[in-house]
Amino acid sequence: MKAVLSVVLVLVVISSTIAKYIPKSGKRIPQTLSRGWGDQLIWAQTYEEALYWSRSRNKPLMVLFHLEDCPHSQALKKVFSENNEIQKILDEDFIVLNLVYETTDKHLSPDGQYVPRILFVDPSMTVRADINGRYSNRMYAYETGDINLLISNMQKAKKLLKAEL
Amino acid sequence: MKAVLSVVLVLVVISSTIAKYIPKSGKRIPQTLSRGWGDQLIWAQTYEEALYWSRSRNKPLMVLFHLEDCPHSQALKKVFSENNEIQKILDEDFIVLNLVYETTDKHLSPDGQYVPRILFVDPSMTVRADINGRYSNRMYAYETGDINLLISNMQKAKKLLKAEL
Repeated sequence: MKAVLSVVLVLVVISSTIAKYIPKSGKRIPQTLSRGWGDQLIWAQTYEEALYWSRSRNKPLMVLFHLEDCPHSQALKKVFSENNEIQKILDEDFIVLNLVYETTDKHLSPDGQYVPRILFVDPSMTVRADINGRYSNRMYAYETGDINLLISNMQKAKKLLKAEL
Repeated sequence: MKAVLSVVLVLVVISSTIAKYIPKSGKRIPQTLSRGWGDQLIWAQTYEEALYWSRSRNKPLMVLFHLEDCPHSQALKKVFSENNEIQKILDEDFIVLNLVYETTDKHLSPDGQYVPRILFVDPSMTVRADINGRYSNRMYAYETGDINLLISNMQKAKKLLKAEL
């Protein structure tokens, strides 16, 4: 009896020592870099990192600005992440970055800072301000119905600038 | 029989439509923002975001530079992520950012770019170059045996600069 009790005590001590940190507010789900825009894609963490990858792999970069509490962002995220054509093209031919905070680079906000907003950057580090959506007041915004336009713009971005010279 | 067959066909079509994108190389584990340094912590994605949080919440920022293929980084990550005291203090009193790429801000590399490297930034946006480890040639490096020094440095960083004035 005593032996069993001490074994139990030892186990309790061991498990409480090994136990991982849990916040007072309860266990959290680990944050993902995808933030729901495509869990199978390999996301860059920062704009600097994304530019480095884009140059070194000679692939265009897609920068996606969004916000967790913006319903337009959330609606676009749903169709974007569930669209296998978009996911496949991005995985194979693009460097991808999604940001919930603005960068200090003004070239990424040619007509202002709003979400959702999608900018393409050529491996030559030129922001493709010429590739835009259908709204004249928010040229880089896309809505859920604009998915085919987005795919066609991705095809445009795949034609690298230096190839056009 | 025919009815069963058409139901099966419909089910196949539906499931292939719903099926999520899987890369040719096989399904990947979604990337986490923690990169293994503490899945329960709330990590900033970029330095700009971290500075914004630090200022607005009046909490010091810890910036952790590391590399996935650096054995010193990996060893430190293991003791760091398993140390509940570190995890608790960071969760409650700090803004945290881990980066595998350097930023453009030279203040974050006072004695060069190396990993692992830990810098503290005061909410006043001052990089605390005065808070360093035990190696004179790599002042912001920590090894697995330096965990207690790191905790004591975290306590130092918690004393905000303006409070000292």
